[in-house]
Amino acid sequence: MLNFASDNESPVHPKVMASLQKANEGFVKSYGEDEITAKVREQLQTLFGPEAKSFLSFNGTGGNIIGLQALAKPYSAIYCSAEAHTLLDECGAVGKHAGAQLIGIPCKNGKIDPEQLEQTIRSGRGIHSTKPGVLSIAQTTERGTTYSREELNILISIARENGLKVHMDGARLANAAAFMGTRDLKAITADQGVDVLTFGGTKNGLMMGEAVVLISPEAAEDFAFVHKQGLQLASKNRYMAAQFEAYLDQDLWYENAQTANRMAQRLWNGLSKISAVELSVPLEGNCLFVKWNQEIHNRLKGNVRYHYWTPEIFEARLVTSFCTSEAMVDEMIALVSDAAV
Amino acid sequence: MLNFASDNESPVHPKVMASLQKANEGFVKSYGEDEITAKVREQLQTLFGPEAKSFLSFNGTGGNIIGLQALAKPYSAIYCSAEAHTLLDECGAVGKHAGAQLIGIPCKNGKIDPEQLEQTIRSGRGIHSTKPGVLSIAQTTERGTTYSREELNILISIARENGLKVHMDGARLANAAAFMGTRDLKAITADQGVDVLTFGGTKNGLMMGEAVVLISPEAAEDFAFVHKQGLQLASKNRYMAAQFEAYLDQDLWYENAQTANRMAQRLWNGLSKISAVELSVPLEGNCLFVKWNQEIHNRLKGNVRYHYWTPEIFEARLVTSFCTSEAMVDEMIALVSDAAV
Amino acid sequence: MLNFASDNESPVHPKVMASLQKANEGFVKSYGEDEITAKVREQLQTLFGPEAKSFLSFNGTGGNIIGLQALAKPYSAIYCSAEAHTLLDECGAVGKHAGAQLIGIPCKNGKIDPEQLEQTIRSGRGIHSTKPGVLSIAQTTERGTTYSREELNILISIARENGLKVHMDGARLANAAAFMGTRDLKAITADQGVDVLTFGGTKNGLMMGEAVVLISPEAAEDFAFVHKQGLQLASKNRYMAAQFEAYLDQDLWYENAQTANRMAQRLWNGLSKISAVELSVPLEGNCLFVKWNQEIHNRLKGNVRYHYWTPEIFEARLVTSFCTSEAMVDEMIALVSDAAV
Amino acid sequence: MLNFASDNESPVHPKVMASLQKANEGFVKSYGEDEITAKVREQLQTLFGPEAKSFLSFNGTGGNIIGLQALAKPYSAIYCSAEAHTLLDECGAVGKHAGAQLIGIPCKNGKIDPEQLEQTIRSGRGIHSTKPGVLSIAQTTERGTTYSREELNILISIARENGLKVHMDGARLANAAAFMGTRDLKAITADQGVDVLTFGGTKNGLMMGEAVVLISPEAAEDFAFVHKQGLQLASKNRYMAAQFEAYLDQDLWYENAQTANRMAQRLWNGLSKISAVELSVPLEGNCLFVKWNQEIHNRLKGNVRYHYWTPEIFEARLVTSFCTSEAMVDEMIALVSDAAV
Repeated sequence: MLNFASDNESPVHPKVMASLQKANEGFVKSYGEDEITAKVREQLQTLFGPEAKSFLSFNGTGGNIIGLQALAKPYSAIYCSAEAHTLLDECGAVGKHAGAQLIGIPCKNGKIDPEQLEQTIRSGRGIHSTKPGVLSIAQTTERGTTYSREELNILISIARENGLKVHMDGARLANAAAFMGTRDLKAITADQGVDVLTFGGTKNGLMMGEAVVLISPEAAEDFAFVHKQGLQLASKNRYMAAQFEAYLDQDLWYENAQTANRMAQRLWNGLSKISAVELSVPLEGNCLFVKWNQEIHNRLKGNVRYHYWTPEIFEARLVTSFCTSEAMVDEMIALVSDAAV
Repeated sequence: MLNFASDNESPVHPKVMASLQKANEGFVKSYGEDEITAKVREQLQTLFGPEAKSFLSFNGTGGNIIGLQALAKPYSAIYCSAEAHTLLDECGAVGKHAGAQLIGIPCKNGKIDPEQLEQTIRSGRGIHSTKPGVLSIAQTTERGTTYSREELNILISIARENGLKVHMDGARLANAAAFMGTRDLKAITADQGVDVLTFGGTKNGLMMGEAVVLISPEAAEDFAFVHKQGLQLASKNRYMAAQFEAYLDQDLWYENAQTANRMAQRLWNGLSKISAVELSVPLEGNCLFVKWNQEIHNRLKGNVRYHYWTPEIFEARLVTSFCTSEAMVDEMIALVSDAAV
Repeated sequence: MLNFASDNESPVHPKVMASLQKANEGFVKSYGEDEITAKVREQLQTLFGPEAKSFLSFNGTGGNIIGLQALAKPYSAIYCSAEAHTLLDECGAVGKHAGAQLIGIPCKNGKIDPEQLEQTIRSGRGIHSTKPGVLSIAQTTERGTTYSREELNILISIARENGLKVHMDGARLANAAAFMGTRDLKAITADQGVDVLTFGGTKNGLMMGEAVVLISPEAAEDFAFVHKQGLQLASKNRYMAAQFEAYLDQDLWYENAQTANRMAQRLWNGLSKISAVELSVPLEGNCLFVKWNQEIHNRLKGNVRYHYWTPEIFEARLVTSFCTSEAMVDEMIALVSDAAV
Repeated sequence: MLNFASDNESPVHPKVMASLQKANEGFVKSYGEDEITAKVREQLQTLFGPEAKSFLSFNGTGGNIIGLQALAKPYSAIYCSAEAHTLLDECGAVGKHAGAQLIGIPCKNGKIDPEQLEQTIRSGRGIHSTKPGVLSIAQTTERGTTYSREELNILISIARENGLKVHMDGARLANAAAFMGTRDLKAITADQGVDVLTFGGTKNGLMMGEAVVLISPEAAEDFAFVHKQGLQLASKNRYMAAQFEAYLDQDLWYENAQTANRMAQRLWNGLSKISAVELSVPLEGNCLFVKWNQEIHNRLKGNVRYHYWTPEIFEARLVTSFCTSEAMVDEMIALVSDAAV
């Protein structure tokens, strides 16, 4: 069966498997005191700047929570998109673990509306509301769109003017970078004013693992305790690090994301020729949102796995990944084409 | 200066002060093992039914949190009005203390929209969302409106059909009862299917204090620990209880609420004759929401204290209390009348 | 029945009741924006120094929790006496609310052993242990003893050398001051290096209420949010403040504590003459610990209420308060004397 | 360098690596809806009984926390050994995440003292203490000892009589089973009265991962939410499951533990012949505790990695694992022998 359900249904990249295999020799210090972990920290500093401190987490939820805890207090308001994964899809974990209150801001194509953000920040009623604390931006967004530098700048300026810290949920940051056509992650995160970010791996070829990157020195203080207490420190950490070693080597992260994005574009190129299919969100990464009709959906069942995102409007989400092949894409186009007749 | 800012700016009713004075004699067992507390428990059973278990809390936030903790798990979704006090005005305390996620449902005149409630409950995505757990209803609402029995029945039926427990934030339950014209609190809470409620005192003549009333036996289990750990057990509890003893005696709670509601009605009767003033929310308790204009607001400044609720639309909230006098009301009407010219 | 069970079983001092009565006039701004609260803040600055910021809490547990939250992070270790109230008697509230880990240090007569403190702080295993964060000292201790300035200095020096913040649980700080013979609270708290303390009222003549006094400016930052979210802000705060207004006026707090201590001393003076009774802990405040025998205990039953603290060794705790009279004390001595024959 | 520091410094067993490699093919449903996860659930039911529900966690801390959350309330007391990993080595994570209070019970050779347990449970002071809730037993203990069935029975009987639930921290349960000489895990857990346990994999040949096994149906209710909110659900869960598939196949878990235990025994056989070395804790698994002297320690430095557990008494912990070879053991014996001269 074809699979466009999610990039987290993809396998592990062979280079990552090879790196795991290579790391699997003899006894090695646990809890991140091994050499591979040390090397990965350096690799991440090469990517995000010499001041960046990095810690690995098992998954995106874990990475987001400890990252947000580095910036938020239990009485903080954390502003995110009303469609944010942290708000809707993590079983309340952010609220439970960080105590803080997530406040969803209306968004368009997954992007936080700057005016609504500003208005919401300013609508607080002092101590009766949670204190404006953190802006959390997903890049790419849950709608697969990528904030441009200009768009980031507008949001982050609002945050700064109102005393907020800035968090980036970069579960698909690689796809955003690929869409922007840059390998310079520092330029599109730290240099834009991001204080803490997660740099996702799981969806882009790793077995599991995200890097939590702390740009702000204040956020980095005591973070090792937040990391450990937050359940994100693997005892046999070499196996977390080995994945990143391969991922960061020769920009595998970028190559993978580029492939995924290219496949999404190819998919849309094909689907756009089918009159019953229309784009529902601008395609700016590896998540393609299209509207078609119930008949197409019914016919695809059993042949393709994907999320029928908003059934009321026949909106589907089609996600590509590093290992989506041209053949798969073309087969999908053919299937939809047949179904649309 | 006239005061229509909030019923929590009112003083303590003389009978309550007298009861406190009377309780102030000699040594008495602490932590609620005193005779006054025992008597209040009985008084509350007379009001809410013989099965009801009651605990006192210092304030409404405290009462709501421990009440909700009796019904919610840390992974629960608690559905409330999008304008709910628990969501907007308690500094994130519910999320912090109970772990659970408050989800605001669109409302009209402060009342939860039943269709939106049902749709939201059913929109959950299994373990990725918090688990539908509790419906929390404010009676009266934050907009001063009172759910009718029929309206309660509709909401609570939806809750039951979806396996939710039902919580009532009754900070102004007395005003709701007075508006409904009934002293039978059991009929409008327990008999309607409410599992846990707070019965407010502070806003209606007490110095401080709410009663948390547990109808569901399951909720009552271990609640003494929730109460203590939740910081709501006064060591010298006789002074919490003495207030309720007076409050519940000869239905002082009802008399006070009736007075407050009557004063709100009198106020609206007068204001309704002024053409620049219009009702913005149906008046169903002691909170009057009106729209007027900026000039009226400017002129009132310095003479009257009240909340300019939604300045963008010149909407004011005027709250009456048990000790709002006819003279105050009439003076207010005159002031607005003058200002409106 | 005679009562030496606890000072929290005592009534409210008449001056405090009078102050509450006086405050009970007309409408007043809520949530601590009233004039009495403002005055109390000034009174507390007179006592604790011009830099001190103060907030009132409903009870001691609440005051301790928000005070500790101002100093501790969720990954902090808070060191306290192994007999500390915060550790043993608050239903786990500190751990639940602050997240942090309380670590009990062996103590003698309720006083933390300095060597054991230092050893425990240094025994941490980095990120695997909670991070040494706060030293919490009860003054007087749960055993009724008072740390001398020298003893405080030793403990606080250890704390400072190890980078800890210092918290004082001053539920009975007034009794400690009276025992030390000083009204200069600043000298025995802020000047000793205490960062945050609670100054108890409930046990010493108030209806309810403790003052949380923040000496460290860092602790005071954002504390209004901690206070509100921590459920300690009364809406009708004038009634919390009015109690303190009387308590702080003309050193009522000191007079009350002095009386309580004097009564405890008188009690011991009498009991010490009975051969079956021996002092089990040095008497340095208003809590007298004595050892006697089972027969005495059996005979006193029904005539006196007190805590049989450690029945295994026939140890009783006898607590006096501001309203313990000489007659009560003498009656108690006579009862024990009769029982001891 | 020789390594006897910890079994978590060992590599991944080749069969586990092979299973991971085999699982790495094509797209597969995420979040545990894959076939390998389904198979592992069945394998675990074969081991722990048909009623057992299982969930995988990333690490032991995570597994213990969600397991304890299934049994404890935020106001619960969880009794564990005073040397328990959960109490001392998890950065306060249990208290932070579950809210509950861990209470350390004096132990001998790592085993909870039954009398002290009973006494502590009964010493509670009602609502002022946390409510006796859970007994948490580490099997093997942090001292490498194994509770016999009789010892388990005594502890669990005390728990049952006092209304406690029973949790087992089985990070090294395989080693306990191997020591007891049985592959029947059900017999030594569920049948003994354990409600929830973790069955460790990381220390015994896995890359990472523990199984949380829920015997009690009540604990299993809603556990999927606890698991997800508790950050323990891997999106690409097939890679967690694939490890267990190999681990449970043909009792690899048992073979590995047996090897580790055998190596520990061989090590002690050799060391016991050196007069300067004495056993400090009975050897009942794969953790050998010995006392020697400072000179031996100094000489071993640079040649062997191990924990100098209690330097004050020259006590060392030597841990073996599935991949400790006879040659390594013999080299170690020779090194100590030389150093001891």
